[in-house]
Amino acid sequence: MNMYDIIRDKRDGKKLTAEQIGCFVKGSTSGEIPDYQISALLMAMFLKGLDKEETFDLTRAMKDSGETLDLSSIKGIKVDKHSTGGVGDKTTLITAPLAAACGVPVAKMSGRGLGFTGGTIDKLESIPGFNIALDTDQFIKNVNEHGICVIGQTAKVAAADKKFYALRDVTATVDNISLISSSIMSKKLALGSDAILLDVKCGRAAFMQTEEAAAELGQMMVDIGKSFDKKTVAVISSMDQPLGRAVGNSLEVAEAIRTLKGEGPDDITELSVVLAGIMIYLSGLASDTDQGIETARERLKDGSGLAKFREMAEAQGGDGRVTEDVSLLPAGRYSRKVICTEDGYVNSIDGQLIGSASMHSGAGRAVAGQDIDPGAGLLLEKKNGDQVSAGDVLCTVYSNDESKLSSAAQMALEAFSITADRSSDTPLVRRVIK
Amino acid sequence: MNMYDIIRDKRDGKKLTAEQIGCFVKGSTSGEIPDYQISALLMAMFLKGLDKEETFDLTRAMKDSGETLDLSSIKGIKVDKHSTGGVGDKTTLITAPLAAACGVPVAKMSGRGLGFTGGTIDKLESIPGFNIALDTDQFIKNVNEHGICVIGQTAKVAAADKKFYALRDVTATVDNISLISSSIMSKKLALGSDAILLDVKCGRAAFMQTEEAAAELGQMMVDIGKSFDKKTVAVISSMDQPLGRAVGNSLEVAEAIRTLKGEGPDDITELSVVLAGIMIYLSGLASDTDQGIETARERLKDGSGLAKFREMAEAQGGDGRVTEDVSLLPAGRYSRKVICTEDGYVNSIDGQLIGSASMHSGAGRAVAGQDIDPGAGLLLEKKNGDQVSAGDVLCTVYSNDESKLSSAAQMALEAFSITADRSSDTPLVRRVIK
Repeated sequence: MNMYDIIRDKRDGKKLTAEQIGCFVKGSTSGEIPDYQISALLMAMFLKGLDKEETFDLTRAMKDSGETLDLSSIKGIKVDKHSTGGVGDKTTLITAPLAAACGVPVAKMSGRGLGFTGGTIDKLESIPGFNIALDTDQFIKNVNEHGICVIGQTAKVAAADKKFYALRDVTATVDNISLISSSIMSKKLALGSDAILLDVKCGRAAFMQTEEAAAELGQMMVDIGKSFDKKTVAVISSMDQPLGRAVGNSLEVAEAIRTLKGEGPDDITELSVVLAGIMIYLSGLASDTDQGIETARERLKDGSGLAKFREMAEAQGGDGRVTEDVSLLPAGRYSRKVICTEDGYVNSIDGQLIGSASMHSGAGRAVAGQDIDPGAGLLLEKKNGDQVSAGDVLCTVYSNDESKLSSAAQMALEAFSITADRSSDTPLVRRVIK
Repeated sequence: MNMYDIIRDKRDGKKLTAEQIGCFVKGSTSGEIPDYQISALLMAMFLKGLDKEETFDLTRAMKDSGETLDLSSIKGIKVDKHSTGGVGDKTTLITAPLAAACGVPVAKMSGRGLGFTGGTIDKLESIPGFNIALDTDQFIKNVNEHGICVIGQTAKVAAADKKFYALRDVTATVDNISLISSSIMSKKLALGSDAILLDVKCGRAAFMQTEEAAAELGQMMVDIGKSFDKKTVAVISSMDQPLGRAVGNSLEVAEAIRTLKGEGPDDITELSVVLAGIMIYLSGLASDTDQGIETARERLKDGSGLAKFREMAEAQGGDGRVTEDVSLLPAGRYSRKVICTEDGYVNSIDGQLIGSASMHSGAGRAVAGQDIDPGAGLLLEKKNGDQVSAGDVLCTVYSNDESKLSSAAQMALEAFSITADRSSDTPLVRRVIK
């Protein structure tokens, strides 16, 4: 089999066989196929499309291109959760312990972040002592003993995805349903859970701008999951502004703890409860999603979720007292308030700009391997629909590098759009695809 | 300007600006833009197309990416000639001296061949002593004194084309009108002639299989030439079987000499006269192409073309006596006759297979820089439409490596398709695009 022929066939709009796709993924991972041929094929795939079967085959080959995890020694139906991401999305920090508190075995591997904030494990690492580098045996042991464990994802999972993503990122071939869904699902499937919950964001601050595009992506991922005999559900949720009020690492952990205490912002509370409820349903512990959501809501209220968070943290060496006292978390020594200059209503908060401000404050990485400032980030005082007057604090920027404050604050100010009239609210959970 | 944005724009079907195309070509030539971005854009260009203006801009940027030649010190209207190539195409060896004999200044730079035989300069080098490596001053001096000079093309002409072609060749992005025509025309325009004659082949043994595809390519190149204020004509000619009877290097030189003596095969004689006639017209030495063709026919008949061939060869250090005695040319020491196994008519001769047989005999290169065997190749005894009987000689294979004969002969035999009925002839010159 010849890479030239594979490129030519896709260029001509032909359907690729499983063998051709397997050969492409294997040769790309081994380094046998040069980058210029990979990127030519990725562009042909982008422009000519892959049908469902090709997307399934691509996902399978990518899954098999690296290490796969065997979680069969964990009792119960393991449910993994993935979010397509967005500024302020700390739902995993809330949803995972909440679901675990309801009996769902949560064996979660997460990646480090690149961009506006760190990833879930960067956030957890802001808890003093929290160890995200457990080996597989310890990981499985923790899940069996505590019902939950969240660790860093090995670089060897779905190795082809690393290669493809790096090339897609610089050749304008990211934005394609088949390529996105095979990238996400190959990693999820390699990690060995029995069921998968996907939180697909849509809106101005999300990768998918419209509900329709997000639903198309969600449907493709649900179809992939089912083709691998995994119960898979996709929630389409709004991302028109940052989720919750905190953007950063320790700032988001603190907000997650507040949320688990029932004191969190409405949006993040609601979404976390819905996601946990669906995980409960997927785990077979509720007859439908409504019942699952009801259970999750109760376990939030009665503090079981918070207790599970503490149990998880302590089982991984972390200082569990942060659940009682968030001031034990690292904080930015310096802060700058961002002041509103006009009267009206917050009409929109540009996620891209808030993300840039967060990264600039030190909360995110521009390149892999960079250190992040766990205490850096933003706290939003005002959100969409809030009435504001000139002089009000819109948000506060935190950093341990004082020199970063002024430009980060400027970016944050520009993110807020104030209008005379109040805009209507959009529902948070738009659609559930099963 | 950013390569990512250029790729994204073409991916989305947008028209690229001259600045974007210039930036792409410049960055590719300098090595600043990595291969994987170049090949992604080439695939996007292939699939989304370039319009005429983009093709003109690409041609201009490629022309300017390397050395350009100034032929202004040569008197008269210099006419360059290019063929899209085919097995047995030795027309330049005949057309160039014939046009020169009629007063057309022929300042021709040619490439070395890759594939079934060498290129024009490889063929000329089979003439003992012939020097194809003159410097530019000597080149111009020869044209002014003798009306003709044919030398090797510097690697520095249209440098971007080298880069692009190497990538297109392995990423299935060769076969596109805009990319082909900008590749050919950027080199022709860099070489500084005043007018350009293009011989675009169509048919089973050509790159363009149909007359329509060839005409589309010819039209685009004519349009490019005109946009640079160069008189440009494209001839669409048949390439359903090898041209003439000789395939190889010295074998083709010998056939060219025979043709200039009026003893050549009909097809190569006719095409060479037509091409020379159009060069005469383009040079302003005939009022129309018919008159030019008439003049060329006369100069072939009266031996002026052959005399000019000898003058050119001797001016470049070659042994001019080859025009009187072709046995002075290198020959293959070993030969093998390919014998017909059935009765009927030659229905077709597969150019691809004859080309492979020629390359296998030693006449062509598989990779650049390889030595070729100047005496190797094939002489066809039978051509399309000829009646044959079992036992007849179809062709003879020549080589200086005896071990190559048997497999080359086998390939050659497979190239001949014999049928009971005689197929109808196709006209050689299909169309002239001005």
